[in-house]
Amino acid sequence: MRIAVLAGGIGGARFLRGVRTACPGDDITAIVNTGDDVTLHGLRICPDLDSVMYTLASVHDEQRGWGRRGETWRIRDELTTYGAQPTWFALGDLDIATHLVRTRMLDAGYPLSDVTAALCRRWEPGVRLLPMSDDRVETHVVVDYAEEGEPEPRRRAVHFQEWWVRHRAQLPAQAFVQVGVDDAQPAPGVLDAITTADVVLFAPSNPVVSIGTILGLPEIREALTATPAPVVGLSPIVSDKPVRGMADACLPAIGVPVSAEGVGRHYGARSQGGVLDGWLVHATDRADVPGVEVRATPLLMTDDEATAAMVHVALDLAKVVGQ
Amino acid sequence: MRIAVLAGGIGGARFLRGVRTACPGDDITAIVNTGDDVTLHGLRICPDLDSVMYTLASVHDEQRGWGRRGETWRIRDELTTYGAQPTWFALGDLDIATHLVRTRMLDAGYPLSDVTAALCRRWEPGVRLLPMSDDRVETHVVVDYAEEGEPEPRRRAVHFQEWWVRHRAQLPAQAFVQVGVDDAQPAPGVLDAITTADVVLFAPSNPVVSIGTILGLPEIREALTATPAPVVGLSPIVSDKPVRGMADACLPAIGVPVSAEGVGRHYGARSQGGVLDGWLVHATDRADVPGVEVRATPLLMTDDEATAAMVHVALDLAKVVGQ
Repeated sequence: MRIAVLAGGIGGARFLRGVRTACPGDDITAIVNTGDDVTLHGLRICPDLDSVMYTLASVHDEQRGWGRRGETWRIRDELTTYGAQPTWFALGDLDIATHLVRTRMLDAGYPLSDVTAALCRRWEPGVRLLPMSDDRVETHVVVDYAEEGEPEPRRRAVHFQEWWVRHRAQLPAQAFVQVGVDDAQPAPGVLDAITTADVVLFAPSNPVVSIGTILGLPEIREALTATPAPVVGLSPIVSDKPVRGMADACLPAIGVPVSAEGVGRHYGARSQGGVLDGWLVHATDRADVPGVEVRATPLLMTDDEATAAMVHVALDLAKVVGQ
Repeated sequence: MRIAVLAGGIGGARFLRGVRTACPGDDITAIVNTGDDVTLHGLRICPDLDSVMYTLASVHDEQRGWGRRGETWRIRDELTTYGAQPTWFALGDLDIATHLVRTRMLDAGYPLSDVTAALCRRWEPGVRLLPMSDDRVETHVVVDYAEEGEPEPRRRAVHFQEWWVRHRAQLPAQAFVQVGVDDAQPAPGVLDAITTADVVLFAPSNPVVSIGTILGLPEIREALTATPAPVVGLSPIVSDKPVRGMADACLPAIGVPVSAEGVGRHYGARSQGGVLDGWLVHATDRADVPGVEVRATPLLMTDDEATAAMVHVALDLAKVVGQ
């Protein structure tokens, strides 16, 4: 079976482990958000691709959620002592090696998809990892705030990472702007993965800054509309709260209720100009999404087996809606 | 007193500690070789400047000779596992932070002299560190060898670091080529330091690839010829062997005998088109250098006090030849 999965970082990574467990031997392609990517200290950093890569390779830090297990922070401490800015983004030592290899390859002219494939030759994630695009797409967040020394807040757009990490998503987001998304081409293999898939799944990732960014690429959205494969999404919202991450800080900015139903309706039915055929919500949730088959099942990714069980339900739902 | 010192890496660093000890409160400028600088893994590395900076800041590894004390190698191990080339140059984790700051500043357009000053704001070396030039000068070594799989040796020029570190200077050097040296401008402050100095000293650094490279800049050589200050050199050769480093692998390539006298004659008397007024050799050595005052004193830099004693003798010699 060929499975295409749209995914963000940490939640997407856990979900992909479940897909791999549920479908051993199947052909799984992850189409990963790159809108959070950032260049810091001259290093190109792809947080979502790395989270997925490390997590699938089982070298991720389970506790912290992101980065490598057994990580150390010697370089970050040195950079801070040098006064190198910014200091709010923690780069681990092991992680920096990945960024060095990536930056060097990008500087040499290789596209991000080739770089990702090269990195994956070491990590053997068991899933084909594709960046959504080799082009630069950058999520910015429109916020009102005052830097130290400024008399009053003013409106400005900051890089997603600055909002997410430095401000911990505590500054109310007025809007999200995916710079470059309109002109970005899907990376090689992305459209093919969607149009030749037997099923397309949306990981329970952030609907605004992860899945939303991927859906922002016009050709990806078109491919999702056109593919003969059923498209089934999993709700990242459980009991009106994000399972993890800060989707509740993102959804209000685009006028979407923080609920499984709200997100399902936001994605919408393929028969009505949207992108979904089926929508999976948590066992205790309900959702009415016009034109979309909704099922309820436990959606807490407590371990690979629990996540694989979710995936099985999603695949069953895909069979129903695909008929 | 204003003292200008021409210096290479490790030997130059130890010598500068001695100058600082001998002349507290004096105005000391180190003009440091940059011909060994190299870009690896996208990082700009200045081995001599870093050796001097770390050693003067007392954070160097005394045992190893180069790099930081308490260094770790996690990133090098990661890069090796990724298969990133080359693997023969060991980059320490703490050291990489320095290279990241430097590379980022250079990429932003700052000249190396500004970058060096910025790094030194942290390390407070007590000596003004100047790269010999902000322009790129690169020492290459002409050697005959066969790479793995090649049927027979062929002549090629390799970067100095490749010869020095990868081949441990074991491949006979046919010649040294300082790429870019003819057009390189001295960094801001270099000529001024030489022409306004009360004394100019040559550290007992490698006469070919350290001091020799600095002297290769036409304007630096002119300034040394023109300065009213006495110029005194210290021999890096003791009992026909280098005190440290591999000068004996370099001198034959330029036809200079591996002896205190050979190096002294190679530098030559200022009165005869050379660059020296005085030449200090080891206590047990003798040297006859036409037109140059020669003194003998222990030249083993066993600790700062021993090195300071050398410096005092050099300054006394400078007084004699300066009259």
